[in-house]
Amino acid sequence: MSTYQPLTFADPTVDLAALGFAPCEGGVCAAAGMSAAGIHAGFRKEPERLDFALVAADEPCVCAATFTQNRFCAAPVQVSRPRAAAGTARAVMLNSGNANASTGAEGLAVAQASTALLAAELGCAEDEVLVASTGVIGVQLPLEPYHTGVPAAVAALGSDTAHAHAAARAVMTTDTVPKECSVAGMLPGADGQATVHVGGFVKGSGMIQPNMATMLAVISTDAPLTVDAARAALKAAVGVSFNKVTVDSDTSTNDSCFFFATGAAGGEPIEQGTPAFEAIAAAVRYVCEQLARKIAADGEGSTKLVTVDVIGAANEKDADTVARSIANSPLVKTAIFGHDANWGRVAAAAGKCGVLFNQEDVDIDFMGVPVCRGGLTVPMDEDDMLRRFEEPEIPIVVSLGQGSAQTRVWTCDLTHDYVTINGDYRT
Amino acid sequence: MSTYQPLTFADPTVDLAALGFAPCEGGVCAAAGMSAAGIHAGFRKEPERLDFALVAADEPCVCAATFTQNRFCAAPVQVSRPRAAAGTARAVMLNSGNANASTGAEGLAVAQASTALLAAELGCAEDEVLVASTGVIGVQLPLEPYHTGVPAAVAALGSDTAHAHAAARAVMTTDTVPKECSVAGMLPGADGQATVHVGGFVKGSGMIQPNMATMLAVISTDAPLTVDAARAALKAAVGVSFNKVTVDSDTSTNDSCFFFATGAAGGEPIEQGTPAFEAIAAAVRYVCEQLARKIAADGEGSTKLVTVDVIGAANEKDADTVARSIANSPLVKTAIFGHDANWGRVAAAAGKCGVLFNQEDVDIDFMGVPVCRGGLTVPMDEDDMLRRFEEPEIPIVVSLGQGSAQTRVWTCDLTHDYVTINGDYRT
Repeated sequence: MSTYQPLTFADPTVDLAALGFAPCEGGVCAAAGMSAAGIHAGFRKEPERLDFALVAADEPCVCAATFTQNRFCAAPVQVSRPRAAAGTARAVMLNSGNANASTGAEGLAVAQASTALLAAELGCAEDEVLVASTGVIGVQLPLEPYHTGVPAAVAALGSDTAHAHAAARAVMTTDTVPKECSVAGMLPGADGQATVHVGGFVKGSGMIQPNMATMLAVISTDAPLTVDAARAALKAAVGVSFNKVTVDSDTSTNDSCFFFATGAAGGEPIEQGTPAFEAIAAAVRYVCEQLARKIAADGEGSTKLVTVDVIGAANEKDADTVARSIANSPLVKTAIFGHDANWGRVAAAAGKCGVLFNQEDVDIDFMGVPVCRGGLTVPMDEDDMLRRFEEPEIPIVVSLGQGSAQTRVWTCDLTHDYVTINGDYRT
Repeated sequence: MSTYQPLTFADPTVDLAALGFAPCEGGVCAAAGMSAAGIHAGFRKEPERLDFALVAADEPCVCAATFTQNRFCAAPVQVSRPRAAAGTARAVMLNSGNANASTGAEGLAVAQASTALLAAELGCAEDEVLVASTGVIGVQLPLEPYHTGVPAAVAALGSDTAHAHAAARAVMTTDTVPKECSVAGMLPGADGQATVHVGGFVKGSGMIQPNMATMLAVISTDAPLTVDAARAALKAAVGVSFNKVTVDSDTSTNDSCFFFATGAAGGEPIEQGTPAFEAIAAAVRYVCEQLARKIAADGEGSTKLVTVDVIGAANEKDADTVARSIANSPLVKTAIFGHDANWGRVAAAAGKCGVLFNQEDVDIDFMGVPVCRGGLTVPMDEDDMLRRFEEPEIPIVVSLGQGSAQTRVWTCDLTHDYVTINGDYRT
């Protein structure tokens, strides 16, 4: 109906093919030198349900990690944070069913004791073992399941796709699907002609579920990254992937992302600033992006993955503030649930967050269709819009007309099922 | 079950009786020298539905106002803001059914023309007339209903409770009840022995409804406030009342609060810093507090009014940030809908917002019952908690253990009806 063209802008998604990489099997075990297991250890009452994941490198290897900034950080975060800072680790174990958060000194002692058990079983130092938990907050986590669970998980370790998949399943809470991604490719550079892999899994549905908590991710690569290079690659990837997801604006007490670099692909150590580093960092970013999208798409009760691009911002901080304001707006999210390209709610959400811009400079596209130009309505073909709302992913692009900074944030719609899932009385 | 005592703290609510004031009839017309009308002018299609409110002083009088900070501010806000800044006004008219927001130069011309029509009818200067709108965003507001509506509203003006009530009803959108409050009392001081009144109405349910927008409030008093005193009293009252309400974190494009001081009660002008000023400012604050509570209680789809007190904060900004983080958390709001005293979600919301505190210093009460002490669970009598959830108002108190600053924020629960109201396809 209108003569306006859709907004154009640089797609921030990593172009995997241009990078010389392609998707592969293997999940978190795609990287050589990594094994995984997912078992029932007894953290959950249901006897068949997987509740304990173990991811281990064959030898202590380079490790980087990021953790929640929540002031109510859980016991496993308190244990793992300083250990990961040392830059070397052998394994991480993750339980579902109990977050070991707000559990005081007793919870901290359990988290520490669990790592001692795993270290003894693997024959490594205690501070080379990391731990993460997800589940109910404020309830003491028993040590008992670790006594049988740790040896059983070590015995169950395997390096194939099925084992990676079991680990990805064992950390699920209100997630409806396991979330994995892995890629393989050749690195550029003098001695970079070996095939390297990056893979991992993530769990997360609401940032905090009904008494369950958390985004947990484990990523691995067999590229020979140095500690500094691993940290830089992870930090950059997390900043534009997991940290750009918002299901309900609620940051968990337990969020943790672990990154292992085994070096088993061989070759010289990869330092920052080299072509090989740029390539592996992009591959890590791709894996994290795909996992982040899966979190948003599997948001509690969601029917749509919503991608919010804010472009034309004065700076990146402004772009991020506006994008989050839109992505967290209950009115925007319910409008999408209602298949309503209600750009007025998007505009109001952009306008409320304190970022300076002029409303007459604002352009908005919904699902590739111009709906607002210069702050004014563009007539829509309502039937066409309803057809477009049948897609599983709903892109919204907002141009502020202030500069050239941009960002992308992922969220989902707000539905009756979200209220049902989170409003059901705790049992 | 526990031996802990509930948290104690200073109640921030104005003690009306201690002030020498009492509730009275009259709404926005309680103040001498004020008239009001509410009519059907044709902004809405339903022939019987009131859609146009007029509040007028007998003569131009002292006026103060506050407006939305949203960058997408509506045409009526652009017209009224500079006029209210002059400190004198005769009347304000408010329509429902169309927000006149995102309507560009054409919308601005309509807002200005409407004030010219009212000024001619009242026989006052055009810049003594204020205007506000609420309703759909991005659709041009026709001038036509004003041609017949303005003379009809002026003819309908009256100074009794019924007329005030009609005005309060005419601005309703998804509000389920009109929201009014008025009080009367004697001011302290040498020539302050006349009875003065403060009254007003407000509308607001979602901060932005399905294509409808806004909190609009009109408050009046017959106390002889100076312009500076009126501004100071309004600013202080709004800061701890309307600005502490959050239904869904979405700030409207049209929010406006108008305050008229007719001086019709007689007496010397009341300046800031006098006992009479302190008393009238407290009465204004009381009226705004009561109206603010009515907004939260009537939040879209809500079943509960939720009062969040954050105490023991290092400073007021920290208290406000934590209180809003809790009040805007979808997980806290759905838990209350589910009658679940889920303090873990409250703790996580407090912890995520960047304010520094130690989790082991945090105490939380739900409905007067200690549920968390020192960051750890206090066992609850679940049956007792479920009984307490039958009350219409749910108080949550969070002590951060950092200092002596505190604040109170009002919100409501998040329910299926909120999703239904806001997810229904625009028709």
